Amino acid sequence: MNASQTQHFFVSAQELADRFNGRVDGDGSVSVRRYMSLQSAQGGDASFLSHARYQAQLKGTRASLVVVPDAQLARSQGLACTLIVTDDPYLFFAKSASWLLQRAGPPQPQASVIHSSAYVDSTARIGDGVRISAQSVIEAGVTLEEGVQIGPGCAIGAGSRIGRGSRLDARVTLYSGCILGERVLVQSGAVLGSEGFGFLPLSDQSWIKIPQSGGLQVGNDVEIGANTTIDRGTLDPTVIEDGVKLDNLIHIAHNVRVGRHTAIAACVGIAGSAKIGAHCQIGGAAGILGHLEIPDFTIIGPMTLVMSSIEHAGKYVGVYPMQEQRDWEKSAVLVRRLSQFRKQLKQTDGQDS
Amino acid sequence: MNASQTQHFFVSAQELADRFNGRVDGDGSVSVRRYMSLQSAQGGDASFLSHARYQAQLKGTRASLVVVPDAQLARSQGLACTLIVTDDPYLFFAKSASWLLQRAGPPQPQASVIHSSAYVDSTARIGDGVRISAQSVIEAGVTLEEGVQIGPGCAIGAGSRIGRGSRLDARVTLYSGCILGERVLVQSGAVLGSEGFGFLPLSDQSWIKIPQSGGLQVGNDVEIGANTTIDRGTLDPTVIEDGVKLDNLIHIAHNVRVGRHTAIAACVGIAGSAKIGAHCQIGGAAGILGHLEIPDFTIIGPMTLVMSSIEHAGKYVGVYPMQEQRDWEKSAVLVRRLSQFRKQLKQTDGQDS
Amino acid sequence: MNASQTQHFFVSAQELADRFNGRVDGDGSVSVRRYMSLQSAQGGDASFLSHARYQAQLKGTRASLVVVPDAQLARSQGLACTLIVTDDPYLFFAKSASWLLQRAGPPQPQASVIHSSAYVDSTARIGDGVRISAQSVIEAGVTLEEGVQIGPGCAIGAGSRIGRGSRLDARVTLYSGCILGERVLVQSGAVLGSEGFGFLPLSDQSWIKIPQSGGLQVGNDVEIGANTTIDRGTLDPTVIEDGVKLDNLIHIAHNVRVGRHTAIAACVGIAGSAKIGAHCQIGGAAGILGHLEIPDFTIIGPMTLVMSSIEHAGKYVGVYPMQEQRDWEKSAVLVRRLSQFRKQLKQTDGQDS
Repeated sequence: MNASQTQHFFVSAQELADRFNGRVDGDGSVSVRRYMSLQSAQGGDASFLSHARYQAQLKGTRASLVVVPDAQLARSQGLACTLIVTDDPYLFFAKSASWLLQRAGPPQPQASVIHSSAYVDSTARIGDGVRISAQSVIEAGVTLEEGVQIGPGCAIGAGSRIGRGSRLDARVTLYSGCILGERVLVQSGAVLGSEGFGFLPLSDQSWIKIPQSGGLQVGNDVEIGANTTIDRGTLDPTVIEDGVKLDNLIHIAHNVRVGRHTAIAACVGIAGSAKIGAHCQIGGAAGILGHLEIPDFTIIGPMTLVMSSIEHAGKYVGVYPMQEQRDWEKSAVLVRRLSQFRKQLKQTDGQDS
Repeated sequence: MNASQTQHFFVSAQELADRFNGRVDGDGSVSVRRYMSLQSAQGGDASFLSHARYQAQLKGTRASLVVVPDAQLARSQGLACTLIVTDDPYLFFAKSASWLLQRAGPPQPQASVIHSSAYVDSTARIGDGVRISAQSVIEAGVTLEEGVQIGPGCAIGAGSRIGRGSRLDARVTLYSGCILGERVLVQSGAVLGSEGFGFLPLSDQSWIKIPQSGGLQVGNDVEIGANTTIDRGTLDPTVIEDGVKLDNLIHIAHNVRVGRHTAIAACVGIAGSAKIGAHCQIGGAAGILGHLEIPDFTIIGPMTLVMSSIEHAGKYVGVYPMQEQRDWEKSAVLVRRLSQFRKQLKQTDGQDS
Repeated sequence: MNASQTQHFFVSAQELADRFNGRVDGDGSVSVRRYMSLQSAQGGDASFLSHARYQAQLKGTRASLVVVPDAQLARSQGLACTLIVTDDPYLFFAKSASWLLQRAGPPQPQASVIHSSAYVDSTARIGDGVRISAQSVIEAGVTLEEGVQIGPGCAIGAGSRIGRGSRLDARVTLYSGCILGERVLVQSGAVLGSEGFGFLPLSDQSWIKIPQSGGLQVGNDVEIGANTTIDRGTLDPTVIEDGVKLDNLIHIAHNVRVGRHTAIAACVGIAGSAKIGAHCQIGGAAGILGHLEIPDFTIIGPMTLVMSSIEHAGKYVGVYPMQEQRDWEKSAVLVRRLSQFRKQLKQTDGQDS
């Protein structure tokens, strides 16, 4: 439960500029404690201009420091406070705000801190600086490397391993026999390593379960959103490579592989054994059927269903365009009748198209 | 875990009619303890007729009391039990059944009751009549106002505040620095205030996280369904206004605003910074892209993707019509070829359309 | 947290063949401890060939035992290890691997085992061989039949009943007044028996809640995936019949009935009061609107919205076909203009179609 548990430490504009490659315009000794939006900032706050098109928001901000792409533009809007000038204010913000938040947070413990209400099996291996919060459960043979933070109410299954510097927020489940890399962030409610959906039909039309004993391997620098679920593999592990970013409420089925630095928006479902390349971007609520391959650098639109493997990287979309209901009713009827419609056209045309 | 923990207290038909504006037809001294459906009701149960089209269900019910829109209609179906006559039996049911359930539940404690297995930080402020269930975690600086009920296994992050009379069911996460209003109901597994999905691409095609330190503000009389997730804002808070109703498994991204009394069905995803008006109704599994605006009183159909801002309130739908698979295969091929198809038409027609 | 907590016990090829109706080809005394994929298997591992089209994977496997449909085919790929020959290697694998995993797991306790950090109300009835893991909460009047396993961090509401041999993984919520059958498996994060989404609009455009006091009845041999939610009924219970299989992140609303042995893939949403027949298969992310009926043996494609009742069993699909974005933009514009397009065709054609 890290966010916002902030005590505030002030830092000067000059120090920020020096650390993150900006140039001060104005009084570099001005000090700030945190970033706020241009509208909400007060004295002691920093802010930034993400795009020139929002420059009207510069007027009337009460921020003590604003990061901008162009001092002249800012001054022309009447901005009198200290500026930091940099090519990419958004990137400057991202880096410096992370640093500020980390600096303001509680100091990292040297020894490990285990809350008295947590249950930690005696065979678990707990590294230096590990924090285990209240009501968590760490089962037999778990390894938590240096600096791992386990939020309240987590359940870490037998024999799993979490790499150094990773952070699990409140109420995360990691099933047994799973491996998380270093600096992984798992948000609250995520379930990692559950059993995949594998059944065979029997002759009486009931189902027999295919046992799911493969594990889950998550690489370094992966982020996993709230209430997202990732199933373990059937025999070999499900694999999430380094740098993958997963939003909330995503389903990743057994035996899937997601390539490094691929980003997947919320509510996406990926069926079993699909292989997603590296550096892909999957839009929200998209679906990917099982056993498909998607090449590196592919972009899938939101709410689009990928029904077969994709040969070439590109941008792909499949969305029924929204209309007012009465118009949709007409178009939907005609979509259903397209093949009949086409026959008519052929007759009119007198030739086969 | 409130529902159904009912001891039953009986109440007379006359008292129900008096309290909720109905008129008794028959013996007003008949007593009932709860509502059941017409088919399942037994002696001592009340029931109701929601629509005249279900009147055939009146036959053979064993309910002791039935709420109906029209006594004559009910008697014509041979119903001999006590009736309550009211213009809107469904509304009468909603109000009186809630009252019955509340009356049958355990009495509200005067002092606060904290389960011995819960962990409550010594700096938390706990109002009168607060109930904190087993295995919950209340972190530093949390405020729980009068009458708040925290279910088992919840995690309430540092500095958050929950308004009077709100109820969190089992295993809810509220991240730090979030504010819930009064009489808010949060169902099990919901995650409120998680970090939004914000990343910038670096030149090596990896991602840098945009820190998410804005909070979450939820108004009064809001209901949030099971396993729904709402992300905190980046700098300013994500806002859910008074009276909003959210079903299960909904995703609401950072910086979204949902206007008051808007109702959102299950499995909907709303991307970052979208502004949804008041009194809207969003159908199940619909999607709303980021940075859009939707005006008050807009209705979005189920599984419809809103890809740009909507100018005028209305009903909007975008759904590919379902067909038998062999017919769908034909129509889907032709949808893909519509622009080619159109060219043909133009040639046939001899003019540009 | 069962999967993979395996100590390994070895079993001979001959014993496996005898138990599960296979025929040994080669040295039947060879012993194996577990199944692995053909690529990952090492000495001491079994593997299997699921389809003849994967026969190239037989080359170079290091498995000690491979289950195949045809010995000659396997030997022709140069496979020298022991074989088990059977008509359906996948089914042989499913049955024998489940048996191996169960055999390798911890022995079933005779007496019940309740972790010291769990909270179990004194009025709960706990059968023989029940295991209740750390940090779980068992409320008043709960019944856990013989051999039930409750994972860490679960919350079981007052008066609920779980049938013999059922297993709840970590952090499952069962609300009060719900019934689970025998041999039910509920994966982590699932929420069962939450209150349905029922509201009536008042004249001031706000909503009044319809109380949800019906329960939930889940039959025998049901499997429920991670973070899936099933709402309780309004008056009568929501019903999940015997043998139903539900994947992750599914939403099942109040008053729904799902018929026996129906299988539902991940991310599906089923709205209130829908009746799904037996032996249906619902594809991932499909949606089913409320108050519909779907007959037995119906197959619904992925991401397909069922908007009205289905009369005849069959395969139904409704998916906008994915295209490269520039092509989609053209087709989507024309879909919207289909009715105008049709008028043109009529004019060209000189007759009403």
